[in-house]
Amino acid sequence: MLEKRNPIQIGEAVKRVMEHKQEGSTECVSINESYGRYLSEDLKATSDVPHFDRAPYDGYAIRSIDTQEASQNHAVEFEVVDHIGAGMLTDKELGPFQTVRIMTGAQMPVGADSVVMLELAREIERDGKKYMETKRKHKEGENVSYRGEDAREGEVLVKKGTFINPGIQAMLATFGYAKVPVSRKPVIGLYATGTELLDVDEPLEPGKIRNSNSYMISAQILRAGAEVKYFGQLPDDFDTCFDAVSKAIEEVDLFITTGGVSVGDYDYLPEIYAKLGAEVLFNKVAMRPGSVTTVAQLDGKLLFGLSGNPSACYVGFELFARPIIRTMLFTEQPHLRKEKAILDANFPKANPFTRFVRSALRVENGKLVVTPSGLDKSNIIMSLAGANSLMILPGGTRGFEEGSEVEVLLLEDHVGSDWLGKTGAVPGCRIPKQRQNDT
Amino acid sequence: MLEKRNPIQIGEAVKRVMEHKQEGSTECVSINESYGRYLSEDLKATSDVPHFDRAPYDGYAIRSIDTQEASQNHAVEFEVVDHIGAGMLTDKELGPFQTVRIMTGAQMPVGADSVVMLELAREIERDGKKYMETKRKHKEGENVSYRGEDAREGEVLVKKGTFINPGIQAMLATFGYAKVPVSRKPVIGLYATGTELLDVDEPLEPGKIRNSNSYMISAQILRAGAEVKYFGQLPDDFDTCFDAVSKAIEEVDLFITTGGVSVGDYDYLPEIYAKLGAEVLFNKVAMRPGSVTTVAQLDGKLLFGLSGNPSACYVGFELFARPIIRTMLFTEQPHLRKEKAILDANFPKANPFTRFVRSALRVENGKLVVTPSGLDKSNIIMSLAGANSLMILPGGTRGFEEGSEVEVLLLEDHVGSDWLGKTGAVPGCRIPKQRQNDT
Repeated sequence: MLEKRNPIQIGEAVKRVMEHKQEGSTECVSINESYGRYLSEDLKATSDVPHFDRAPYDGYAIRSIDTQEASQNHAVEFEVVDHIGAGMLTDKELGPFQTVRIMTGAQMPVGADSVVMLELAREIERDGKKYMETKRKHKEGENVSYRGEDAREGEVLVKKGTFINPGIQAMLATFGYAKVPVSRKPVIGLYATGTELLDVDEPLEPGKIRNSNSYMISAQILRAGAEVKYFGQLPDDFDTCFDAVSKAIEEVDLFITTGGVSVGDYDYLPEIYAKLGAEVLFNKVAMRPGSVTTVAQLDGKLLFGLSGNPSACYVGFELFARPIIRTMLFTEQPHLRKEKAILDANFPKANPFTRFVRSALRVENGKLVVTPSGLDKSNIIMSLAGANSLMILPGGTRGFEEGSEVEVLLLEDHVGSDWLGKTGAVPGCRIPKQRQNDT
Repeated sequence: MLEKRNPIQIGEAVKRVMEHKQEGSTECVSINESYGRYLSEDLKATSDVPHFDRAPYDGYAIRSIDTQEASQNHAVEFEVVDHIGAGMLTDKELGPFQTVRIMTGAQMPVGADSVVMLELAREIERDGKKYMETKRKHKEGENVSYRGEDAREGEVLVKKGTFINPGIQAMLATFGYAKVPVSRKPVIGLYATGTELLDVDEPLEPGKIRNSNSYMISAQILRAGAEVKYFGQLPDDFDTCFDAVSKAIEEVDLFITTGGVSVGDYDYLPEIYAKLGAEVLFNKVAMRPGSVTTVAQLDGKLLFGLSGNPSACYVGFELFARPIIRTMLFTEQPHLRKEKAILDANFPKANPFTRFVRSALRVENGKLVVTPSGLDKSNIIMSLAGANSLMILPGGTRGFEEGSEVEVLLLEDHVGSDWLGKTGAVPGCRIPKQRQNDT
């Protein structure tokens, strides 16, 4: 007898998972380790920038009023009373027709309100003293970077939840964040199940394959911004699995298993969830691949039962586990970023289910163009390697033609979308009655 | 007296740097640490995939010839002689009208050449024995995944120089790469120069600013795929700088300094290069910002003298140092990826120089749209934080209007371009005679 499962729409499935999202937490790391992390607090300006009036060019700091009479026919002469570079200070306060030679970035002398650029100045030496003359009138504030021009103390410059890129790292340094408050990386537990699995360092045996899902999911966890706690492989044996899983759950923020969630004769995850007393949020989703993706919760902790099929496993992680991780990193847009693109291949065959096709997204003349990354459906391995996106092909009664517009989800992205949303409510997405076991 | 420097075109500058590119080298890391690294050898299939004929669905393995007489009106009956899941083997060889119940992924029994899916089979128990009947004719090979269908032993599946993503990690596991040959990360030495610099944990002082360039460049180095060896800050003092720099160069693959390369009174890098006996490849580039970027080579080792101005420093690194790093990671496309986008702002002011404007690139209805990330020119800090791209505005006599097409360089990308190329030969890129010291 086949177990009958009731498939739900994708949007509904995502919603059920997100109802159990957890708050993230903060840890402080050295600024040297902050690149690639996510800010857990708003980045505020701790001072004005610049925090003193400064010269934006090499030149001569002057009182602009002294250039009132300057013209092409009349050079005005200044006595050079000091010479400073960036980081140096002068103790001279400028009197009338006095100047300080000043380099880019140096603090303006007291009394100065303008800088004559080197190109517009002529330097003179007379009786062992230095003078500068210019023929150009200067206005107050000309060639001066004023305090607070770039940022004001207390201003929020970057929102929490933002990925720390090199520019943000520069800002952190500017404002003295030697320690940076970042989101603690959630710890994601991982068990692979399946009697057929060999470890990566084992030789092949008849009927067995090497476990690739654990390594794939581990990389997906890292890409999402979390940490992996890999517990190993389990055979398809109820008692062994139950003991291992119930212990492992305690040690992590989220728990993922691969395999064992379908309705096959050796798929024990459903029974394990039942014995644990976990609430199953869904065990069938109207999508391909990944329809048997099962998510449960136990005392508020989410348990993700991903398919043992590599493509289904991949997609199930990205749609359901990733947004939970990104939420814990304080991102306001935890879902995969969704964009529109032009389809570069034919999908003549209609499919009643919404499909997520592993795809290579590229730009052609400023437009996004998307191609399935493994043109041959069966070639799961190649299609995963080349994928930087998931193309969404809504279920329905017709296929898709080259040149039509489709939606794609970006996999290598720090921005995200606020809600996978509309995908769940794709019109025409019928759910056939018969069991489909190709995922 | 102002030193007169001879600016060269960007393309020529890139070419001179690339003439001194170095070969990368290989190291082996555990597959658990390979995500995010670059393959240093082609990834080859070490076996067929699948490496045995297997069932792609749950069902019954049969000899297709036995279903010849099957039809809607005539069910054919098989004796169930065994029951296997993935990873299990049967020792039964199928005789006429015998079948093995088989789960997805299990190896096909000897003699079987087709699988009846569960949906098309009816199970019967009679006298304590199990039987299966089907009304459907099956062809040879129907519902069988054949050995080598996904990949053939010896096939090159992924080229060296490719960024290892989750899909490639899965392939590495499939083929038993417990240790993965990856490019050794080049070690990039870094010194910040400038008397005005305070460290990130120091309180602000009049005339001084915190060193942000080192942290920014460190993150850029990590993003490019290399390792940072940060030596610290140096005051604008020739002897101190010379000693420190000449020692540091020995310990690294490439060497970067920030600051001290312009023609200011305290800019000592040019003299330091001279005393070291380094060959200066160029010290002025027809571009903004970053025109004073200086690159030298000493016994084949590249020395990058980046501007102390944050924007100029940022751009100088990405255009000149990044392709050298990516080359050492075996990438065939080491330069920043270049795409076309629609400009979403007005740049009414013409500029004789090609400009690289720090920009935020986004997608709107499937089209790339680019906006300067800090609309106010002076707001260097904000523009760096929001930048995911550099917009190229060719120098010339006219400005650029909203809606026009421009080229952009993508900063957060693992793909790259094979050559920054055409940018260097932008028509109408005049080089003014006067010294421009705003970078």
